[in-house]
Amino acid sequence: MENDRIIRVGVVGATGYAGAELCRLLYGHPAARLAAISSVSFEGQALSDVYPAYLGMCDLVCETQADVVEKSDVIFAALPHGLSQDLAEECMEKGKAFIDLGADFRLESEAEYHEWYGGEFKDKSLHGQAVYGLPELFREKIKTTKLVANPGCYTTVVPLALVPALEKGYIEAEGIIADCKSGVTGAGRKPAQNSHFPELNEGLSAYKVANHRHTPEIEQTLSKIHGAPVKITFVPHLLPVNRGILATCYARLKPGVTEEMLRAAYEARYGDETFVRLLKPGRSADIHNVKYTNFCDVSLFVDTRTGTFIAISALDNMVKGAAGQAIQNMNLIFGLDETTGLLQVPPAF
Amino acid sequence: MENDRIIRVGVVGATGYAGAELCRLLYGHPAARLAAISSVSFEGQALSDVYPAYLGMCDLVCETQADVVEKSDVIFAALPHGLSQDLAEECMEKGKAFIDLGADFRLESEAEYHEWYGGEFKDKSLHGQAVYGLPELFREKIKTTKLVANPGCYTTVVPLALVPALEKGYIEAEGIIADCKSGVTGAGRKPAQNSHFPELNEGLSAYKVANHRHTPEIEQTLSKIHGAPVKITFVPHLLPVNRGILATCYARLKPGVTEEMLRAAYEARYGDETFVRLLKPGRSADIHNVKYTNFCDVSLFVDTRTGTFIAISALDNMVKGAAGQAIQNMNLIFGLDETTGLLQVPPAF
Amino acid sequence: MENDRIIRVGVVGATGYAGAELCRLLYGHPAARLAAISSVSFEGQALSDVYPAYLGMCDLVCETQADVVEKSDVIFAALPHGLSQDLAEECMEKGKAFIDLGADFRLESEAEYHEWYGGEFKDKSLHGQAVYGLPELFREKIKTTKLVANPGCYTTVVPLALVPALEKGYIEAEGIIADCKSGVTGAGRKPAQNSHFPELNEGLSAYKVANHRHTPEIEQTLSKIHGAPVKITFVPHLLPVNRGILATCYARLKPGVTEEMLRAAYEARYGDETFVRLLKPGRSADIHNVKYTNFCDVSLFVDTRTGTFIAISALDNMVKGAAGQAIQNMNLIFGLDETTGLLQVPPAF
Amino acid sequence: MENDRIIRVGVVGATGYAGAELCRLLYGHPAARLAAISSVSFEGQALSDVYPAYLGMCDLVCETQADVVEKSDVIFAALPHGLSQDLAEECMEKGKAFIDLGADFRLESEAEYHEWYGGEFKDKSLHGQAVYGLPELFREKIKTTKLVANPGCYTTVVPLALVPALEKGYIEAEGIIADCKSGVTGAGRKPAQNSHFPELNEGLSAYKVANHRHTPEIEQTLSKIHGAPVKITFVPHLLPVNRGILATCYARLKPGVTEEMLRAAYEARYGDETFVRLLKPGRSADIHNVKYTNFCDVSLFVDTRTGTFIAISALDNMVKGAAGQAIQNMNLIFGLDETTGLLQVPPAF
Repeated sequence: MENDRIIRVGVVGATGYAGAELCRLLYGHPAARLAAISSVSFEGQALSDVYPAYLGMCDLVCETQADVVEKSDVIFAALPHGLSQDLAEECMEKGKAFIDLGADFRLESEAEYHEWYGGEFKDKSLHGQAVYGLPELFREKIKTTKLVANPGCYTTVVPLALVPALEKGYIEAEGIIADCKSGVTGAGRKPAQNSHFPELNEGLSAYKVANHRHTPEIEQTLSKIHGAPVKITFVPHLLPVNRGILATCYARLKPGVTEEMLRAAYEARYGDETFVRLLKPGRSADIHNVKYTNFCDVSLFVDTRTGTFIAISALDNMVKGAAGQAIQNMNLIFGLDETTGLLQVPPAF
Repeated sequence: MENDRIIRVGVVGATGYAGAELCRLLYGHPAARLAAISSVSFEGQALSDVYPAYLGMCDLVCETQADVVEKSDVIFAALPHGLSQDLAEECMEKGKAFIDLGADFRLESEAEYHEWYGGEFKDKSLHGQAVYGLPELFREKIKTTKLVANPGCYTTVVPLALVPALEKGYIEAEGIIADCKSGVTGAGRKPAQNSHFPELNEGLSAYKVANHRHTPEIEQTLSKIHGAPVKITFVPHLLPVNRGILATCYARLKPGVTEEMLRAAYEARYGDETFVRLLKPGRSADIHNVKYTNFCDVSLFVDTRTGTFIAISALDNMVKGAAGQAIQNMNLIFGLDETTGLLQVPPAF
Repeated sequence: MENDRIIRVGVVGATGYAGAELCRLLYGHPAARLAAISSVSFEGQALSDVYPAYLGMCDLVCETQADVVEKSDVIFAALPHGLSQDLAEECMEKGKAFIDLGADFRLESEAEYHEWYGGEFKDKSLHGQAVYGLPELFREKIKTTKLVANPGCYTTVVPLALVPALEKGYIEAEGIIADCKSGVTGAGRKPAQNSHFPELNEGLSAYKVANHRHTPEIEQTLSKIHGAPVKITFVPHLLPVNRGILATCYARLKPGVTEEMLRAAYEARYGDETFVRLLKPGRSADIHNVKYTNFCDVSLFVDTRTGTFIAISALDNMVKGAAGQAIQNMNLIFGLDETTGLLQVPPAF
Repeated sequence: MENDRIIRVGVVGATGYAGAELCRLLYGHPAARLAAISSVSFEGQALSDVYPAYLGMCDLVCETQADVVEKSDVIFAALPHGLSQDLAEECMEKGKAFIDLGADFRLESEAEYHEWYGGEFKDKSLHGQAVYGLPELFREKIKTTKLVANPGCYTTVVPLALVPALEKGYIEAEGIIADCKSGVTGAGRKPAQNSHFPELNEGLSAYKVANHRHTPEIEQTLSKIHGAPVKITFVPHLLPVNRGILATCYARLKPGVTEEMLRAAYEARYGDETFVRLLKPGRSADIHNVKYTNFCDVSLFVDTRTGTFIAISALDNMVKGAAGQAIQNMNLIFGLDETTGLLQVPPAF
């Protein structure tokens, strides 16, 4: 590939966890080059001063957001909710691609956005351009846009567990439960009491029970697949591990549906997907097996005693649940092979 | 208390985790004295050679099972399944109390026992004497027996989460889901690949999905409370922490039932229970807060969007889920205050 | 024991980790009663609101410092450095015992205190009354005072490893190295970047290399034992565990000294000490074996290839390194058996 | 690069941790291809059956050792000690390169090999061909051989911490201490009591104190650099983390040596080394910052109070301490850029 074809990439909010993970993954991307990064808190400092792990590898100095836009073909934004809308508008005006790792463009309903995030849609036409960046479900639309709303972690792992069964009508759309367990990087870089080592270590609890902001986003995706409104019960838990989400999803089986039928549906749906790995019968997904990579492992079980379908999926919340998926979206937008730069073997230990 | 009133306690299988935990807790019991311990694997060795943590505190040497029976008023058995029946018979004949931490006497139905454990009831009359030792539910019957089937860990944490709601008829008995997460001590002392540090650490997966032996035992308890057969979907997960179980239980609310009604039912049911702590609205149970103690924390939530009741409970699988509850049962049998020797403050970190 | 003999205990700074640990341990003390607690940050709140683990066990509400002094026979202060001097003076005036878990009274040399902490001795006569509260070394003096400077964690674990060898003149006083590894509770309750779970977990680094404030305090103790100034090289490391310190101490052996001589010296010195456990040859101290208890395990090795003595000791930084030792000092001051309320079996897992 | 230039790589002992790590890293190597793997225990099974993390990425089936030799240009052996000598001979005869991750060829002295490992040199001429594969010290010799003795983990991290100071004569060669802390993968894949999760987690202890087999290997390297025999005191500790070694090394400074002089020596020595990162003054190496990569971080301190030099180094024991360094050696042997396939950014969390 010639040098002028290399995609110049900018990361706004590079010193947060999602931003830093983007920088780590982009280093190994053969068709992209990290052109500029910004951080409000660390402007003028090298990324490797904030993260000494990056020393000698990512020593880029944080500039301003304007610098990043100027120097890049595609801008990734890893910003607190509400700060992406203006930036997206600017990028669109300048003909840059924009991939938002925040929530500003994820919900199509302004009412829901207002209910769960408290904000407004500043420019409705902009929201009309945004495509929800879950490639395994919306690949073709992603290829046509320059504005991607990159899904959150829970909102990737739950739909990937349920979609084939729902799509085929094998499960009841009512009564779905998603019991999720997340590593602590999902809560970000800022120290807090519940992520203080001695208080999280050797513990486990639920949080925002049936009240988490990702609920309407998961429902939006499932409703599209189902063709009618779907409501779910979503309970997240905070795990004492750095990375990874495990989603244990429960749904009532429709009469006559067997494990074989379900397995066939998942194989058909995901057979060509590089990043979704359907596990053998009897094996459960494990966050251990997807760490640091863009894979989402999916495993299927049927409780014949109660007529319950159980789908257990796992991904790395910072990769397939954030930065890796964002790069997957970039690859689609720029016409690259979707897996470019994302094929690492998960460490076995 | 005079010396001749001190209960002489024996532990058979003292070098397994449940047995060792019994010894730890009994050390601080003011009305009991560890009289003898046995271990097939470590006969002739001091317990503190096997567990150096116990040095100077529990230096008792492992004897034979016969020695233990001879020297004790009450025998705790922490044995692999199937080995307790003969021992129980011997204890009954000699007029000793017997508290079984294994599964041999837990299931009342021999057919279920055969289905899930593969064994037979050697002496049916003995099984008729056994009382299921979950004191918060069956206290009065426990006081009348000398043969206690001490529940397992999951089989304590799930019923304590659900009983008040089920008892009041506030939830549907059909469709109950128990998504449980257990610390690794639940799998015992024997090293295995899935408890090898590098392969469990930073991981999380489910195991024995909808297929775990504790399922019929949980159902037996819930069915008694409900007055009709209850079947549940039970999925356990293996957590990278030493101790603790968190049970996230889901049930469909009956029409018209509110969070206030549920809370009132739980307060009424557990208000006098020392070891069940009902948490304030909005707070989730956390295994961090019950470690090393006999408490079971219970927290309640209602998902009004979907009509789902969510009860989250936590306990230490080695204490309230095994050795602590066994001592609670001993206290009941011997007419002591139920909490004797069991009132430690859980470490906050 | 009659009620009027029960010691009324107050804890100033009860919501920090050392303060909270005091409350936990005092709950089980048969001759003391937690009479009042204070906290600047949480005044008016129950301790169990700050630490939900304590629910139903330590529900005392935080009052003012003045309330605590008023209601107590002995005041434990777990305060930031510099805040104990005025409080100590007030307690002495009112005839109360005062046990300071901070550093204000630990160093006998005001010059050293100024150099390492930046403060002054407000009332020199008060400093003259203070006794350094390391019972295994200074028991008799502690019994005579009402003002105890309770040692820090490193300053207990290092001297206990070295004193018998130094006292006997078996090692060179020059060139001693203490390579210490501490659990993160030693850094306190306040969240910080280096104790944020994802950045400490799966990591290990040194901090304040050859520059830690505990250096002069360790040297003060060793110099007293040696009868001449001792300087050491002290390097602490931060471990991804909650509790515990392991000190690996190195010293050059004097000619002709053998492992047997060393072992005999340690046995003689610590044979009657309940809280110091000398391990068998070949076994290393492990922080796993002292957690949640007041034990300090000591293990000895000789590297005959290089003529080096290696003493490895372990304790729980929150118990023998803080709250437990403070209670041990209280017991001494009030004429109780030194071990009262402190004899728990360390959990084996 | 044309297909016929791709190096065909074989791994003998592929299902142990070092072997599996080789497979993971080789997947991303642009000039090498994993041609065949073998495993005595798992012959006929896919690597991804043993390590589900590798599913879809490393599904190669384990063959026999003979198959591996036949199909490969270079053979990596990750075998128990003593099993490499015959294999090395076979490879040399067939003109294949051989890189041994075991200890058979590391010690040049047969007497030392016999003393520490109990074996003999079967073919002394073979040992004469072997080059010790620590590229930063012996790069030029490695380029000339086809038989590499790849160093162990401790034996890489300690010399890299000390060599520049020793080489310049800035430290005394006598009295060097290496206090090392290792993640548990260093002990291999086989479950054992001391790596059983509940007994390692939240613990820390030393093992093989002043008695570890890596001692003579470290001394061999330091002696070569020093030009005279060097003996050290080496104490390893087992950390409750998966990966990484931190070495805290102590040496007496020669008179007049300053931190600036030391720093200049290290900068000169390592300025051109990609994989050795010298940290800024005041920053300690942290195993967190090198995980999953081939970097060795080195940090320097001087304790002017005692005249002690403190060098703290960190690496990933499975990468720079095993598989990564082995690939670095392969690159040198085959005339590739030494860093090929090894430039990953360490994850920051």
